[in-house]
Amino acid sequence: MNIPKSDLPRIVIIGAGFAGLQVARGVDTNHYQVVLIDKNNYHTFQPLLYQVASAGLEPDSIAYPIRKTLRRKKNTFFRWANVESIDTESKKLYTNIGEVSYTYLVIATGATNNFFGNKIIENNALPMKSLTDALDLRSKILGNFEQALNASTEEEQEALMNFVIVGAGPTGVELAGSLAELKNKILPKDFPDLDLSKMQINLIEAAPRVLVNMDEKSSEKALKYLKDLGVKVWLETMVENYEDNVVSTKGNSSFSADTFIWAAGVAGTFPNGISTESVGRGKRIITDDYGRMKADNSIYALGDVGLIQSTRYPNGLPMLGGVAMQQGKYLAESFNRLAKGKAPKPFVYNDKGTMATIGRNQSVVELGKLKFQGFFAWLVWMFVHLMLLVGFRNRVVVFINWAWNYVNFNNGLRLIVRPYKKTKL
Amino acid sequence: MNIPKSDLPRIVIIGAGFAGLQVARGVDTNHYQVVLIDKNNYHTFQPLLYQVASAGLEPDSIAYPIRKTLRRKKNTFFRWANVESIDTESKKLYTNIGEVSYTYLVIATGATNNFFGNKIIENNALPMKSLTDALDLRSKILGNFEQALNASTEEEQEALMNFVIVGAGPTGVELAGSLAELKNKILPKDFPDLDLSKMQINLIEAAPRVLVNMDEKSSEKALKYLKDLGVKVWLETMVENYEDNVVSTKGNSSFSADTFIWAAGVAGTFPNGISTESVGRGKRIITDDYGRMKADNSIYALGDVGLIQSTRYPNGLPMLGGVAMQQGKYLAESFNRLAKGKAPKPFVYNDKGTMATIGRNQSVVELGKLKFQGFFAWLVWMFVHLMLLVGFRNRVVVFINWAWNYVNFNNGLRLIVRPYKKTKL
Repeated sequence: MNIPKSDLPRIVIIGAGFAGLQVARGVDTNHYQVVLIDKNNYHTFQPLLYQVASAGLEPDSIAYPIRKTLRRKKNTFFRWANVESIDTESKKLYTNIGEVSYTYLVIATGATNNFFGNKIIENNALPMKSLTDALDLRSKILGNFEQALNASTEEEQEALMNFVIVGAGPTGVELAGSLAELKNKILPKDFPDLDLSKMQINLIEAAPRVLVNMDEKSSEKALKYLKDLGVKVWLETMVENYEDNVVSTKGNSSFSADTFIWAAGVAGTFPNGISTESVGRGKRIITDDYGRMKADNSIYALGDVGLIQSTRYPNGLPMLGGVAMQQGKYLAESFNRLAKGKAPKPFVYNDKGTMATIGRNQSVVELGKLKFQGFFAWLVWMFVHLMLLVGFRNRVVVFINWAWNYVNFNNGLRLIVRPYKKTKL
Repeated sequence: MNIPKSDLPRIVIIGAGFAGLQVARGVDTNHYQVVLIDKNNYHTFQPLLYQVASAGLEPDSIAYPIRKTLRRKKNTFFRWANVESIDTESKKLYTNIGEVSYTYLVIATGATNNFFGNKIIENNALPMKSLTDALDLRSKILGNFEQALNASTEEEQEALMNFVIVGAGPTGVELAGSLAELKNKILPKDFPDLDLSKMQINLIEAAPRVLVNMDEKSSEKALKYLKDLGVKVWLETMVENYEDNVVSTKGNSSFSADTFIWAAGVAGTFPNGISTESVGRGKRIITDDYGRMKADNSIYALGDVGLIQSTRYPNGLPMLGGVAMQQGKYLAESFNRLAKGKAPKPFVYNDKGTMATIGRNQSVVELGKLKFQGFFAWLVWMFVHLMLLVGFRNRVVVFINWAWNYVNFNNGLRLIVRPYKKTKL
């Protein structure tokens, strides 16, 4: 990899998500050379991916070119590459564009889908973790209605219009809600010759309530909102398989559905070379309170891929964007302290709350002890998400789309740009 | 194909471009049933494709869902399908979703690239005719700079940064201009560790001047603008081949370039089943002044795919969006007259002018006898293009992007969403 030689210690960061980008932006490059590597040339704002999937936002407004975020930062180099493996002995990374050595390595590679070893589900389910996933899903959803017009049997048509989402965490709940709005407000006008009452949105969750990481009150309210919108919610239901367009569960219920969206389990993902002893629950890399791998003090793991195990956080921290951002800022600060000969302080998570939106005027928000729902929660949700988006242009465009949709229920982003093709096992 | 039965005559339109969409929107469906078929579910505003390719606009703002344009129109049915062939005897179309019969057939399938039989060029050149072409080109251009950082030799790096565009019509000229702006204003900030002076934009044209369909004065001015921006223009130069990253021409010059964009020739494209006697120059279907095929009065061909041969227009009309739009409106009107028992009038083209933009403040405009260039022409160009865009939301978003770029030279749409992969012959 062509990186200019330098006498400064080199920090190599893998992953430009919430955590990695904060490290790259925050490190004082008078004291370090920074190399940021990502498999995409853009940062994705994952919390709004579901709106790209449901044709509410365009991909360009929730992603941001990494190079643009690093402008005017000297000694900072972005490389668009896949990291293939880490050699912790020689402190080198191997990538598809050559090798690079590091003084410090920051692993901020996030999480990927966890299909719990079920290969059939892995091959047939639609994931929702990346911008391309969301675009594929958009094409698939819209394409199914076009196909439903030409279905030869009633059963085929119903399967095409049946959407099964597994996992009622924020992604599953928000996607279910926005599909319900498509059903109720937008698609009937686009498809006057299709009986949209046949469209089904089934949300399946193994736990006894939706949004299990939030308060019970929030779960109840979210469930009510979902039901009001017409989403069928199946709690305490375990999906067993998805084959030949049939979703089977560990009960009696099964669903004949052409679209099966996986928002259930995630697991850490990182390049080869990390010893198995350092990997904990959910395939996350075990670190101390400083974000350092216990086995190798030159390697840090943060965000979704890092699992703090300490007296302060015996059970680690949740896999949330907020944690990742704070850890990223913290680690940049730690590096800067180190450069000045100061000892780093341990990381302390400042829980700013969680929120989810189900439909227009329908959100649930928990800010510390303050818990509220409904219209005001929805305004707060929108404001927070707009402010978290990188780039002023993106904020303006997203705001226009939201305002437009609020007034018209209709923004015109329903392009099937690259038709999704199911690959059968 | 599932289309409701009706006693009304059925007009089937293939293609939802400028011409086809106007017919579908204008026909009085008290008297006709209308079936509109397109291989995409969206209408593309082709004149701005080049800005998607050069990362100036997002795809969603220059395309528009066809179903949305047809809302509240009764007896009008859109089908997302590929037409495979036409049986003019039995008046039927065969498509990938079944057959459909017609009373009147409107062929508005536009034009595709014409590689003049050179298969090597066809397989290696990047076209610029569709939204996916433009997105592929965007990924390719940006990906090349990422790769250039890791080039192992000087030659490899220069080839990655050399962009050859064949054809100095509006598409070629506008794309060359916007690549030059990327080079001059945007990429140096994104790639501080790359010597952008090595980036070359070569525009090759067989004719003795650029924009050959415009006035000589406009051509001269456009050439000056291009040169000012740093584009190398090669007039009276015929491209012969493109193999192993080398563009060879019918002179001594050759170019070592990884990116070879084809904006040179177009030819009509339409499904099988049209007899060869009805096909004229540029593979266009020959019609009379009413847009009707001379051999079969139930079939109409308009827009780029139609070639009027009449005493009024012995040489046909140019392949322009303006001609297509006017023909579409005209044909809808003709059908409406027919329904009322009135004879249709022949089509008369109202030439509203042509224009092209080369860079900021640099456009050439010809409105009848009024010909002007520069800043005011550029304002006119922007205004006209904004007004022609379908959808108010699209106009607002495009306007914001343009305003943003004008002030900042930088809008942040430089995502490589699906990396382009060259397929070698």
